[in-house]
Amino acid sequence: MITVNENYLKLQAGYLFSEIGRRIRAFKAKNADAKIISLGIGDVTQPLAPAVIKAMHSAVDEMSKAETLHGYDDNHIGYPFLREAIRENDFGARGVEIDTDEIFISDGAKCDTANIQEIFGTDNVVAVTDPVYPVYVDTNVIGGRSGPANKKGQYDRIVYMPCTAENNFVPAIPEEPVDMIYLCFPNNPTGAVASAGQLKEWVDYAREHKAVILFDAAYEAFISEADIPHSIYEIEGAKDVAIEFRSFSKTAGFTGVRCAFTVVPKQLKVEAKDGRTVDVNSLWNRRQCTKFNGVSYITQVGAAAVYSAEGKKQTREIIGIYMANAALIRESLTRLGYEVYGGVNAPYIWMKTPEGVSSWEFFDRLLTKAHVVGTPGAGFGPSGEGYFRLTAFAKRENVEEALKRFGWVR
Amino acid sequence: MITVNENYLKLQAGYLFSEIGRRIRAFKAKNADAKIISLGIGDVTQPLAPAVIKAMHSAVDEMSKAETLHGYDDNHIGYPFLREAIRENDFGARGVEIDTDEIFISDGAKCDTANIQEIFGTDNVVAVTDPVYPVYVDTNVIGGRSGPANKKGQYDRIVYMPCTAENNFVPAIPEEPVDMIYLCFPNNPTGAVASAGQLKEWVDYAREHKAVILFDAAYEAFISEADIPHSIYEIEGAKDVAIEFRSFSKTAGFTGVRCAFTVVPKQLKVEAKDGRTVDVNSLWNRRQCTKFNGVSYITQVGAAAVYSAEGKKQTREIIGIYMANAALIRESLTRLGYEVYGGVNAPYIWMKTPEGVSSWEFFDRLLTKAHVVGTPGAGFGPSGEGYFRLTAFAKRENVEEALKRFGWVR
Repeated sequence: MITVNENYLKLQAGYLFSEIGRRIRAFKAKNADAKIISLGIGDVTQPLAPAVIKAMHSAVDEMSKAETLHGYDDNHIGYPFLREAIRENDFGARGVEIDTDEIFISDGAKCDTANIQEIFGTDNVVAVTDPVYPVYVDTNVIGGRSGPANKKGQYDRIVYMPCTAENNFVPAIPEEPVDMIYLCFPNNPTGAVASAGQLKEWVDYAREHKAVILFDAAYEAFISEADIPHSIYEIEGAKDVAIEFRSFSKTAGFTGVRCAFTVVPKQLKVEAKDGRTVDVNSLWNRRQCTKFNGVSYITQVGAAAVYSAEGKKQTREIIGIYMANAALIRESLTRLGYEVYGGVNAPYIWMKTPEGVSSWEFFDRLLTKAHVVGTPGAGFGPSGEGYFRLTAFAKRENVEEALKRFGWVR
Repeated sequence: MITVNENYLKLQAGYLFSEIGRRIRAFKAKNADAKIISLGIGDVTQPLAPAVIKAMHSAVDEMSKAETLHGYDDNHIGYPFLREAIRENDFGARGVEIDTDEIFISDGAKCDTANIQEIFGTDNVVAVTDPVYPVYVDTNVIGGRSGPANKKGQYDRIVYMPCTAENNFVPAIPEEPVDMIYLCFPNNPTGAVASAGQLKEWVDYAREHKAVILFDAAYEAFISEADIPHSIYEIEGAKDVAIEFRSFSKTAGFTGVRCAFTVVPKQLKVEAKDGRTVDVNSLWNRRQCTKFNGVSYITQVGAAAVYSAEGKKQTREIIGIYMANAALIRESLTRLGYEVYGGVNAPYIWMKTPEGVSSWEFFDRLLTKAHVVGTPGAGFGPSGEGYFRLTAFAKRENVEEALKRFGWVR
């Protein structure tokens, strides 16, 4: 008799953004005329850069002729032209040496951060920040690295590291030993960044305790302040212990195009139970070759165009538009008397909800009174309770309109 | 201390097609001038249909304007326009009623057939044909549903169902109870098809034993004979027990574009350990929402164009070209005295190697003497030993040239 993966039954409620979508649809069904402005899901609003569009048209044309058709991407992990552009621009240009065969192209950082746990044992102790991007937690629950959830929605066996205004949203090293450490800087949802010194502490911990750091740098392009590391590999020793995730989704507006990449250094080794040394790069390669079949050629050509001179200039301009929104949101909410974090090195603004108002209450109030959508902090974990996430991914006029309506809510 | 998923260490050798790629590269390194013809990996050679190209250009243009930009695919499981086209053309037109929310768009049937096992318990007994598409087996090994491999490369706890000329390459129902049954018709690698009566036996078995059939129909578009089911849902009762996988890779030349879909009927229910009934459609939906982020909008628009009047005509013509190749391969090899199967309802020809020549020996001989690449049957399992797979996915002149060179090998 067939059985299910019972770990799925431990999962709490729906996937956060599905639940938000459900509430919006329910509101719309009763308020067809309401002009809803979303500062909720981190989805882009600026069109793709002209250099990317041009490159994708040309790739589509290549697919129309037998001589230039591209079928399967032979090695499943991305075309050399794209991996080379990444090596040079994302790492080489910052003094970080990464080999092209340490770079794995994929269809999304969500997929990669979700799938990475599969190559590790189910006996590992997972550490996540609280609040946290739900995918890290949910995939480890499904993968069998947790017990059941408690009333707060936190799972047994998973170590939660609170991130609040008190520690500047950078977690302290936990007292109990942990093996798989998820860090995300610039952070989703808090917008916080970690300094080189703070990351060094984590790298040192991982080296000492033979832990692995799963470093989500999907928002690195939004870093505006100097001296903030863009890659964990800027930290000495990180290649021995860290896997890094990057994405074109936010950097180049690829949320609807789907392209990302993951770096797995060849230096990263793990000891198997029988004592032999396992190369994590080979393990991930095997995972991708077995369960994945590469990214659309058209998409990869588009992604490579992000690194052209024009592409760089255009995507920087797009990021500038979003970060101007972020600054406006910060200023306006501060003026309205809200306590506001993030929005300087990240497209996310993390605001405190009014005293005594829970984050889902604030969500419903903002939706029904102001027709503005944000993301309830509690959706990211118990320490997110009392906070609310706004994103800078919106058209300027919508940001302005939304901020005006914020006044109605207080 | 971090540990790895030790199940990976049970895997035998590399992924089949990676190993083939490795041998070809090694040969090329020493024989730079050799003009290698590949009838090996099932990769398409005909360009995308003009209707698809046109649609994708227009989708790329939409992505260049804020008003028509498409970001995240809200529900992660595909745009309604594509799911509706599938519902109507792939199922409705054949008298099979499938709801659009039973259809999940993905980036590949390889990914879906690889990922589907994740939603089931690790205690299930997996049944696969022998020979078999390696992905079904490898992903279940990784997923923890096998013991170690024996000398023949077969894994403990997995039930292998031999498919040979004796049973027309359609497996008999095994004597021991099995829970997850992978069937692929038209078959890769043998090119065999199953009749409605044969599929009915499997559906009845699954209903009686509460097993699930994972039905890979990636090659259904190549069926040329009447009365051969295109979907397992043409069989009464199948919706209670079967999940079906389809792909645009071979049907519409999307190997480099990446689009496929999986049907999970809402009727398909499984009992959890605590007795509650679990809806497999919801389970798969949760899996996709948590670990996947949808398919490129551009790709989905291209896939939908396959169902336009022009698209249908053009893709049928392309399939006709491949099937004419298949017929030529069948005839020529038969004339050369080879025993040949498949190639009538599938783009694969399954030939017997000469007496006493193993399939990898035949691979090396064909590569080094004739500079022709095929796929060794043993790569698909022990019962594939003594067989060799050729694909019809090649340019006509290459097929003709390859068949001429076959004469040099014997």
